Parts: sequence; C-alpha cells; structure tokens
Amino acid sequence: MYRLQSLAARSLIAGALDQCSPLTLTSLTGVRHKSQGPSVEKCGQMRFLTAEAKAAAGRLEGKLREKTLTLDTLNPQVKAVEYAVRGPIVIKAGEIERYLEEGGTKPFSEVIKANIGDAHAMGQQPITFLRQVVALCTFPELMDSPSFPEDAKWRARRILQGCGGHSLGSYSASPGVECIRKDIAAYIEQRDEGVPSDWENIYLTTGASDGIMTILRLLVSGKDSSRTGVMIPIPQYPLYSAAISEMDAVQVNYYLDEDNCWALDINELYRAYQAAKLHCQPRVICIINPGNPTGRYIDNVYTPDCQFHSFKKVLYEMGPEYFNSVELASFHSTSKGYTGECGFRGGYMEVINMDPEVKAQMVKLLSVRLCPPLAGQAAMDVIVNPPQPDEHSYKQFRQEKSSVLGALADKAKLTEQILNAVPGIKCNPVQGAMYAFPRIFIPPKAVEEAKALGMQPDMFYCLRLLEETGICVVPGSGFGQKDGTYHFRMTILPSIEKLKVLLGKVRDFHIRFLKEYSALE
Amino acid sequence: MYRLQSLAARSLIAGALDQCSPLTLTSLTGVRHKSQGPSVEKCGQMRFLTAEAKAAAGRLEGKLREKTLTLDTLNPQVKAVEYAVRGPIVIKAGEIERYLEEGGTKPFSEVIKANIGDAHAMGQQPITFLRQVVALCTFPELMDSPSFPEDAKWRARRILQGCGGHSLGSYSASPGVECIRKDIAAYIEQRDEGVPSDWENIYLTTGASDGIMTILRLLVSGKDSSRTGVMIPIPQYPLYSAAISEMDAVQVNYYLDEDNCWALDINELYRAYQAAKLHCQPRVICIINPGNPTGRYIDNVYTPDCQFHSFKKVLYEMGPEYFNSVELASFHSTSKGYTGECGFRGGYMEVINMDPEVKAQMVKLLSVRLCPPLAGQAAMDVIVNPPQPDEHSYKQFRQEKSSVLGALADKAKLTEQILNAVPGIKCNPVQGAMYAFPRIFIPPKAVEEAKALGMQPDMFYCLRLLEETGICVVPGSGFGQKDGTYHFRMTILPSIEKLKVLLGKVRDFHIRFLKEYSALE
Repeated sequence: MYRLQSLAARSLIAGALDQCSPLTLTSLTGVRHKSQGPSVEKCGQMRFLTAEAKAAAGRLEGKLREKTLTLDTLNPQVKAVEYAVRGPIVIKAGEIERYLEEGGTKPFSEVIKANIGDAHAMGQQPITFLRQVVALCTFPELMDSPSFPEDAKWRARRILQGCGGHSLGSYSASPGVECIRKDIAAYIEQRDEGVPSDWENIYLTTGASDGIMTILRLLVSGKDSSRTGVMIPIPQYPLYSAAISEMDAVQVNYYLDEDNCWALDINELYRAYQAAKLHCQPRVICIINPGNPTGRYIDNVYTPDCQFHSFKKVLYEMGPEYFNSVELASFHSTSKGYTGECGFRGGYMEVINMDPEVKAQMVKLLSVRLCPPLAGQAAMDVIVNPPQPDEHSYKQFRQEKSSVLGALADKAKLTEQILNAVPGIKCNPVQGAMYAFPRIFIPPKAVEEAKALGMQPDMFYCLRLLEETGICVVPGSGFGQKDGTYHFRMTILPSIEKLKVLLGKVRDFHIRFLKEYSALE
Repeated sequence: MYRLQSLAARSLIAGALDQCSPLTLTSLTGVRHKSQGPSVEKCGQMRFLTAEAKAAAGRLEGKLREKTLTLDTLNPQVKAVEYAVRGPIVIKAGEIERYLEEGGTKPFSEVIKANIGDAHAMGQQPITFLRQVVALCTFPELMDSPSFPEDAKWRARRILQGCGGHSLGSYSASPGVECIRKDIAAYIEQRDEGVPSDWENIYLTTGASDGIMTILRLLVSGKDSSRTGVMIPIPQYPLYSAAISEMDAVQVNYYLDEDNCWALDINELYRAYQAAKLHCQPRVICIINPGNPTGRYIDNVYTPDCQFHSFKKVLYEMGPEYFNSVELASFHSTSKGYTGECGFRGGYMEVINMDPEVKAQMVKLLSVRLCPPLAGQAAMDVIVNPPQPDEHSYKQFRQEKSSVLGALADKAKLTEQILNAVPGIKCNPVQGAMYAFPRIFIPPKAVEEAKALGMQPDMFYCLRLLEETGICVVPGSGFGQKDGTYHFRMTILPSIEKLKVLLGKVRDFHIRFLKEYSALE
C-alpha cells in the first residue's frame, strides 16, 4: 500500500535525477495518493511508473552523484561578498564561547561582543510603551486589560484598523500599512521643521538594509555592459560593499577625513567621482554622513554643540531647483536610535523626486516580497508617534528614553577618554550612534607577521585581542580605511562597568602588543 | 548661526550634485555643527566652503536636472519582473474600493478580494496559543499575568532564553534562534516518521519567499555567460518567475497534467529538460507539487484518500545513494497552513547535502540581511511545537485548528461543486491549501476582443468580472497555463456565506459572458 506512493515518488525522483541531476529545490511538498487503481488517475499527483522507477533507480545504483552547487559553480557575485560585521572574528568568538561553556579555559571568563550594534543583547532595556503597543497588536484580547494604558491601546487599535481583518497576521500593502506611512510622513515634517513630506513617498521596509538593497537593485543591472558606480564613504557600513558585490556594481570610494573628525571633504568627493568616470558610470552617492562605523543618528547626538539636520531639509533650503529635482532616498529603522529594536526588523525609506514610472516598478519589486513584517511596522509607528506630553505614558517614556541616551553619552565620553590615553591609539569624539572607530598603530614587525600569515594587519590585531582578552571587535579593514592606517570598530553598548573592563583590557593588550613588537621600551 | 550649517551643507550638496548629478542615496543623515570657528575643524562633518557653495549653486541656477533613474535607465531585470498576484487586477480593485468609499456607485456594494491567500484579511481568526506566546515574548511583563497559560509561558521563556539579552529586540544569529532551529528539526523528524533532520541544516527565513530567493541567488549569477535554467511547474506561484526574471536566469516550464488533477508527468519533465539543455544549463527543479495555485500543504489535506509525504522522506526510502547526495531545499512558512500568519513573515528552509563551503557562503549571504524578524521566528516555533495532549492549551488549540481546517474543507468542496455546475467552467478537486484554479472557456469572439485590446484573454475576463461583480481573482496567465487554455486563481478563504455569494456571482457572470459572445443560446 505505502510502497505504491514511494514507488510512484521514486519513478518521479529517480527518473528526474537520473536525467537531470540538478539541485532539487522544492517548496512545500504535497500529498500523494493512498490507494491504487482508477483513483490514482483521478487524484494521483504523478503517473504510476514502477517499471521506469526501477529502471531509473537501477541506472543509479552505486553511482555517486556530483554536487550541482560547489564553490566553483557558486554565483561568483555571492563569493565576492564580504561582510565583516559577522565575519571570521565573530565566528571565532562563537567558537571560543562554546569552548568556555564546555569547560575550556582561557585567560578570560567570558567573550564580550562589541562587534555589532545589538543594543538589547548588551543589556539595554526595551522602551515599555513600544512593547506594550506591539503586544496589544499581537494579542488584542489585552485591550480589556487594565494594566495597559489607554494611549497604548488607542495606538494599537489604530494600527489594527489599518490591517486586513484587523489582524497583524494579514499581509499589508507592499509599501506598508497606510496609517503608519502617514504617521511617518508627519514625523518627517516635524523633524524637518515643516518641510513637506508626502506619505505616498514612504515605504516600510524589513530593517534599513532591505530598503537600501531595493533602491540599489533599481539602479544596478548586474550586466557587464552598464557598469554602475556606487559612491560610498570610507569607512562605510559593509552592507553597502556587500550589496555592491552581490549586484556586480562598481564600488567607488570617497575617503572621509579622519583628522577632521571624519569630515566629508567635497574635494575628495570630486576626486573620487572624476576617477570613477574613467571606468564606470557613477550613478549613486551614499551619504552615511559618516553614520556607521562612526555614526550619528537622529536622537543619538551626544556632542552638545552638534544637532541633527536631514539632507532633505537642506535640499529644501537650497531652493526648488534642488528640492524638486534631486532624487533622494533616506532610510531609518527600529534597530538603532534609542529603541535598539533590531530583532523587529522594522524600517522605512522616504523617496523623493523618483520618476513615477520607476516608482511603479519599485512597488512591483516590493510586492514580490509581499510586505515587511507587521510587528516591525507597528514598532516603527511607535517610534514616529511616541507618547505626547499630555498623555499618560509620556513621563515613563521620556524617562526611559533619556536614560538610554544619557548612558550612551557617558559611554561615548568614557570610550574616547580611555582610548586616547593609550599610546598608539587615537579615537575621534564619538558624537553619536553607538560606535567608536579608533585608529590603532600597528608596529611594522606585526604588519610583516600578519602579511606572512596572509592576513590584514588589523584582522591579525583583532584576532589576537579576541584570543587574549575575549573582546570581540571588528577590524577596520572590514569597513575600509586609508591604506597604511588601521582601525577597529567597537560598540559602546556594554554597561559602564563592563565597558570600563573592556577598555582597560584593550589598553593593556595594546601596550603588550606594542612591547612585543618592540615599538615601546 | 543656522546659515552656517546650511551653507556648509550647500557647499557639499550643490557641489556634489553639480559635479556628479547622480541619484543621492542617503542612509540616516547626521549632525551638522552649530557654531563657526576652530570647532568646525574639530567636529564639523564637512569643510566649510561658502565660496565653492555659492559658485556651485550659481552654476545650477535655473538649470533643470535630468532624472538619473528613468524607465530607460532602470535595471532591465526589474522591468522584466511580473507578479500577477499583486498586478493590474489588484491595483484596479483598490481603485474601485476607493471609488465606492467616496460614494461612487457600481452594480455591487463591495469588492471581494479572492486574489491572495491572506487568511486573516478574509476573517480567519488567529490561533490563540500562537498569539499568546508571541505576545509573551514581546512583553515579558505578561509572564506574571494569570490570564496566560503556563504552557504558553514556558515556550515564551524558552524562546527568550535563546535571544540575546533575553529580548525579541536583539538580532538572532543569521540562521535563526538555535532552540527554534532545534524544534524545527525535531518537528521534521516526526513529520517524516523518523527520517533524521539536523538542526544545523535549518535556516529561519523572512517568509518562504526569502528562503527561495536566497537559494536561487546562490545558483544564478545574472551573467549572460552562465545561463542557469530553473525548471518550474506550470501553473506556478509567480514568485518563481519573478525571481528568475530579477536574477536574469532562464525559466524552464514543465507543464502539470490538468486532466489528471494537475499530476506531475515524468515524461513531460524529461521533455522540458531535454528542450532546455539546447539553450541553457538547467540546474534547479522547483517542485511545488503543484502547491500553488492549486496547492496542498502539510496540514491542509482535504481529500480523505490523500495524505502528505515529504520529498525528503521519499529520498530516504530510495536509499543512501539518493538521501546522501541529492541537494534538496524545502521551505515552510507561518503564512499558510492553518495559522495563516502572513504578516509575521516567519518561515524556514531545510537544506540537505549542500557542499559545506557553499553553506558557509550562504550563511555569509544571510548575514548581510542580519536576521529574520524575531516575532516571525517565535510564531514559527509555535507551529512546529504546538500544545501537546497533556498540556492545558491543547483542547482549545485542537478545536481552533480543526475548525479552521474543517471550514476550509467545506469551502473546497463547495467551490468545486458550484463551479463544475457552470457551463464552460471545469474545476479540479481542491485537495488542499486555499486555492482553486478553475479552467474557463473563453469564446473566440471574446479572445479576439481581448487581443484587439492587447490583453491576455483571461486578464480581459477577470477585469470584466471585477468591473461587473466586484470579485477580484487573478488571471491564469499570471501563473502560466497551456497555450489556448484559460484559468483564474481564486482563494477559498471567504466565509461560507460570502463564498456562496461570490460563486453565484461568478456563475451568473460567466453565463452572461458566454451569451454576450454568443457561445450560448
């Protein structure tokens, strides 16, 4: 009885594999018929071909199939992708963690991960109000619970009214839930002191990365013919270089001015553009400003004499010939800022001056992925529509927000101070966001040793740091840096206590390292 | 004071635009300095170049910039993408809905969307237990609430223990939360009656689409040189054709046997493969079995004499020469099945026999997107680890699950019966899932009229159906069909009452349509 199905299946699979021998990609696989006879014809999913099955299976006896997908046959653009933030160092850190869990011994008791801006993983507490709204959307029975405040409930109700069947489980329109797009547009107008924002230019995304990939996808064909150049700041966030590799575009570097606190130097921008024009068509400038690894975000500005200005607002001030013509896409997400809700994968992009026909094409492309996760959309809505002074939850929200930002500001200062006191380390002020990108002096002997090992000197340095102290940071080479300069990126997210320990260990390691390579007496 | 910044910004932007004139893609834009003087040098993000700014701005006065991104310069692969499920019909349906909301009149009072498998949007209620667990993970304060059952709480605790900082807001490892991967592997072993499943072969995804795109991305380079052929069943789910267009691969059609209840005919598979080899390298077979539009899913099997078997289990029964060598990727998601949690974008894939080096490359590619949404991962965990008979929530869970599946089975039968009673419509039994894909006879005169309008005949039919009845279904041409045959895909998700109305309207429309084109007296 059961044989029938598996024989029928064999006839299909053995035959197919023998003839085709490709990788089999199957979506959810289905039903097969239980009984023989006419009903097989009526309902069976495949003809019943025992003979062929046996023959096909026979032809394969003992024969070892070769793999369809090997490193040689892999999409070369995938091979070219590099992504330092989760690269070899992080894999090594995971191995060491497991080793310690299994009772292994190291000169340290735990791995401190300062490699990724994962705020909650480093102990940052979520904003209560945001979680209340998302929980209410997820389980609307909670609307009756007296332990949830009204201002959270009405936001949740409003979001659910924008969802099909009033459920977070339905698809939204591909650009996102309409009322959330409207809240975002209102937020942007307020952020930019009245510069208009059209909600139909707002597209919800699965984190910021997804939106950035979508925009690049529109511009880059992956055909050799049109070598699209994408100008990115160096240092950059490796998503850009990874996307550029994956899409087979041309990465055009413009270097930020480290001596000028990572200033964007317009003359360097010209240089990069003119140089690029010789071998590609530069069509995109990415301005991370510099963002990440040495970034700043709207609410995370620690240096008292700095404040946030959006490029869109500046375009507006430059007059209609700019504001009405420059094609600009800006991205935001729930991951950074003071909420640190990375796991919700919420985000949005505002796209201005895009050709309407291109916009229609973009919506089509978004629709293939159906829609961004609804919980992330809901989280995004809370960020752009937080409790107002006249609302019940305002006091607690304000207190939680400022304690997160206050702690980050303290850590930023602490990081800069301790690192700059170490010989051979120079750290620009951390003006915002959650990263420091200190420059490290690596003695020539260490550089030689690294090169002998076929390793970037700062990778060599960071691996040593990890092995000897358990501290996981990312080599500057993963973000890009001027030749002959070396850096690492660390987050400032650990608790003050942990951060002091971490920075102390970095100091001691660095001095040992300099001594070992006799750059210090 | 403020002028300084905007002048500084102008110097950057005007200069850059004037020189480069590309699309400006900006990630979150940052801080600009408030005060002039040395501190500008110390902290400013760009050199202060008023003169250049004015000059640059001057050069642009009145000059109208051309768009960087137009339909002509758009990535041609994006242009080639087609996605019927959210195509012209659905856009038209949206327009009609707005028209009705604004008080416009039509021969009907509402648009009934049967175009997409969006269960909750059509009124299906979520599974209480799933939402309880996700709500608990989202807002752990609820762990203290007596209104949440213990079996939901311990699942939530277990998931949170697998999350960084015990928070749904932290990134997971790119392949997903480890304990969830283990639950999925255990679920697959049980599903396949003991066939082993290794949790390290399980990768969480953002819905099934994301996983399918990832696997295809590994195989398809988008270079003309290697014309990778992807074999897909026709009719297919348009994600496949869309992905193939976007990646510039070659779509290789193998036709399912409609007269044999959409059976997969092995001889047709051979034919397609042999034909494809003449112009590409077929490297992938997608088996949707036939899945969607005429699909079946694990728990959604309505025909009593059918049951689910996975291809992996069949490979196992075929012996080690298959089970240990065939590269197989299988996908599942929270969207379909009895939960219908589309909005959570949860999903997973199991990948067996993939070359370890390729696997490492895939993980790298996944890591660029950081991780799938955590709420979706949590929802996926509940689906593979539902309440057990000895647990408090089992009774309610079982009752909710069977009422969803029972209703779908009734609707499947009802749909088949009513449609098959209509002259010129033939509908195969809906054996599972949530779609019917009836074949419709379109009279030659109507075919001519459609072609005169440059329209697919079934698109013409579906537009007429929408305009005259408010019913939104998707033309078969969006999924693929044998030349000269016409179909539409409808979901069976509306409530029984609504479905009866819908099917009655389809019947009346079809008869009118045949009369109008004098195919009936």
